[in-house]
Amino acid sequence: MYRFDEEIDRRGTHSSKWDTLESGFGITAEDGLAMWTADSDYPTAPCVLDAVRRQLDHGLFGYFTDDGPYRAAIRWWMDARHGWRIEPDWILTAQGLGNAIALCLDVWTAPGDRVVIFPPVYHEFAAKVRKAGREAVECPLRRDGDRYELDLDDAQSRLTGRETMLIWCSPQNPSGRIWSADELRAVADFATRNGLILVSDEIHHDFIYPGGTFVPMHVAAPQATDRMVVLTAASKTFNIAGMKTGNLIIPDPGLRAAMAQRLRSIDYSANLLGYKMVTAAYSPEGAAWVDAQIAHLLGNIASFDAAVNAIPGVRSLPLASTYLAWVDFSGTGMTDDEIAARVRDGARIAASPGPGFGTGGARFLRFNLATNRSRVDEAGRRLQAAFADLQ
Amino acid sequence: MYRFDEEIDRRGTHSSKWDTLESGFGITAEDGLAMWTADSDYPTAPCVLDAVRRQLDHGLFGYFTDDGPYRAAIRWWMDARHGWRIEPDWILTAQGLGNAIALCLDVWTAPGDRVVIFPPVYHEFAAKVRKAGREAVECPLRRDGDRYELDLDDAQSRLTGRETMLIWCSPQNPSGRIWSADELRAVADFATRNGLILVSDEIHHDFIYPGGTFVPMHVAAPQATDRMVVLTAASKTFNIAGMKTGNLIIPDPGLRAAMAQRLRSIDYSANLLGYKMVTAAYSPEGAAWVDAQIAHLLGNIASFDAAVNAIPGVRSLPLASTYLAWVDFSGTGMTDDEIAARVRDGARIAASPGPGFGTGGARFLRFNLATNRSRVDEAGRRLQAAFADLQ
Repeated sequence: MYRFDEEIDRRGTHSSKWDTLESGFGITAEDGLAMWTADSDYPTAPCVLDAVRRQLDHGLFGYFTDDGPYRAAIRWWMDARHGWRIEPDWILTAQGLGNAIALCLDVWTAPGDRVVIFPPVYHEFAAKVRKAGREAVECPLRRDGDRYELDLDDAQSRLTGRETMLIWCSPQNPSGRIWSADELRAVADFATRNGLILVSDEIHHDFIYPGGTFVPMHVAAPQATDRMVVLTAASKTFNIAGMKTGNLIIPDPGLRAAMAQRLRSIDYSANLLGYKMVTAAYSPEGAAWVDAQIAHLLGNIASFDAAVNAIPGVRSLPLASTYLAWVDFSGTGMTDDEIAARVRDGARIAASPGPGFGTGGARFLRFNLATNRSRVDEAGRRLQAAFADLQ
Repeated sequence: MYRFDEEIDRRGTHSSKWDTLESGFGITAEDGLAMWTADSDYPTAPCVLDAVRRQLDHGLFGYFTDDGPYRAAIRWWMDARHGWRIEPDWILTAQGLGNAIALCLDVWTAPGDRVVIFPPVYHEFAAKVRKAGREAVECPLRRDGDRYELDLDDAQSRLTGRETMLIWCSPQNPSGRIWSADELRAVADFATRNGLILVSDEIHHDFIYPGGTFVPMHVAAPQATDRMVVLTAASKTFNIAGMKTGNLIIPDPGLRAAMAQRLRSIDYSANLLGYKMVTAAYSPEGAAWVDAQIAHLLGNIASFDAAVNAIPGVRSLPLASTYLAWVDFSGTGMTDDEIAARVRDGARIAASPGPGFGTGGARFLRFNLATNRSRVDEAGRRLQAAFADLQ
């Protein structure tokens, strides 16, 4: 019924993940495996493809009006899937969440400001902060066995008073950590105490595995509404990142007006097919597809973890969320360069280097498991072979 | 073979043009005709639809990389269709030309600056200038019978020294005027003399009727390259405005670096299907479709002009370019309100009010003729009926 296990050749399709194996990693082998950029190797949901097909049958792609159904679909999804009641007018549309983060920095921080992040974390947070001429303040998470913990006392000690924004990742990329309501409240209170705009990137919120419960920041900490900007998108969930359609959900009217003004000033609006695809995705049919995807990913994760955890000194941290395995190679005693070389040259796998995620990322690699099962199985076998001398 | 004459019902398709007849014009009649927003009522070219179909068959819409073929297609089109040799790296991609104009104002002008425009002209020039907190300086074109002429001596007399940008429209919307190389050089020299960034919006350049020759600003006035930004898009030509993909073509490395930096700072890039559709459009197959479209539009223009020019006191100015008829109702002796009421309530037609185009627009209406022939014929009949008392 769904095509999660079809092996699709994405080479030559303008895929960032697959068409940069040579230029980005030096992998020239015909059987190179792309497991870095966070998109999926399977087609999006049938209901999303149907939306494109309807527009194709219509044949016209002129000026778009009325994003009412789009907003209504987002509202339905947040309520039905996450227990979060939002108002349609809280939604502002950006060109994906990379653009949304950059716009937040543009609107609510000034050059030279310090922006608080909690590494190891999505590498683009620090990259965008620096690209905007702001300074990233790393407040590292504390590793406790297989689990990362907040250390807000330590974080407080790193602030200088020049901080104006905190960028939060929930569920957490790359660790897959799901934060409890208490933890989210503690982060919100930290933001309030320090006068920080709280940007909560919740893009991975639909990938929640059995036993876990995702709590939206706004549900956990409504008292911090006046400083809160929540970022969500259907792009990871439905594999439509190339359509450049994401959202800033801003419950506070003042904050929302500031961002709306910025978007208007550059004559911003999303593209017609982005609107139509997201509207179709956030539906009961889309939800059923996501549930099936979760089941598929659980199998992928089990296969991958079993293979790599069998390598002495290697540990894939248990994933509560996301399709991104966060693998600790530190027990091998190898350097980052040696680990990377074995994975790249031995296993012919392109994975995201841990050091890019900031403090705490050394001797880790992140592997994207959103592909068909046989590729995951093959990756496990190749990694075992690449580190076979440790057996 | 092509579907220019198919009558397609666009109501309820999120069309800006058709789904706002009631909210924007108060037209509730079932047979209301939308002839305002500049998109077309027929499907895009088969080669563009094929590009969407290929992506639909692939089923994946992940992160996009490598706009090389996109740039190569633009380069081919500018050379093959317009005799303009550009380099691929001159091209920066924006979210359509509305966004491109707003970005130009953002990068090269400051609040309070004055921006020179030549009305009657595309209403969004003045609107975007004002929205950005800049001041629009109207330097009106001089009407000489059926033709608009530049009056640069008059323009010079209106400058105060606080001007920093000139936004030019070529071919001209709403009059369809095609500018000669000599005229373009005069405008470029005017910009140089006054130290103005010269933004040349050439979006209508593919709609050139027999006898006319379009000259790109950069071909006419290479001596002004160091202040020149040319805006082009496939959006009007191929009816894909909703895909939000347009270009800033900037031959000067310094100007280009400034815009590229601004785009990077907000993490800007186009959407996957926009790239693919434009790449497919700018091809020999696309060119053949455009040629057929031109033939179709010539017939539409002939039908419309014959009908409205038969109304005493009404004159549709001869169109050398664009699919937008610019109709002078001043000979009727009526006020703008009376003209608008007869067209809206009598003819049930939504047309763009002339006063919105600035000085020189009074008692004009602009009618979009990019539709099937029978709608154009019907519009002509209705306008004759609405002004029948003048016969």
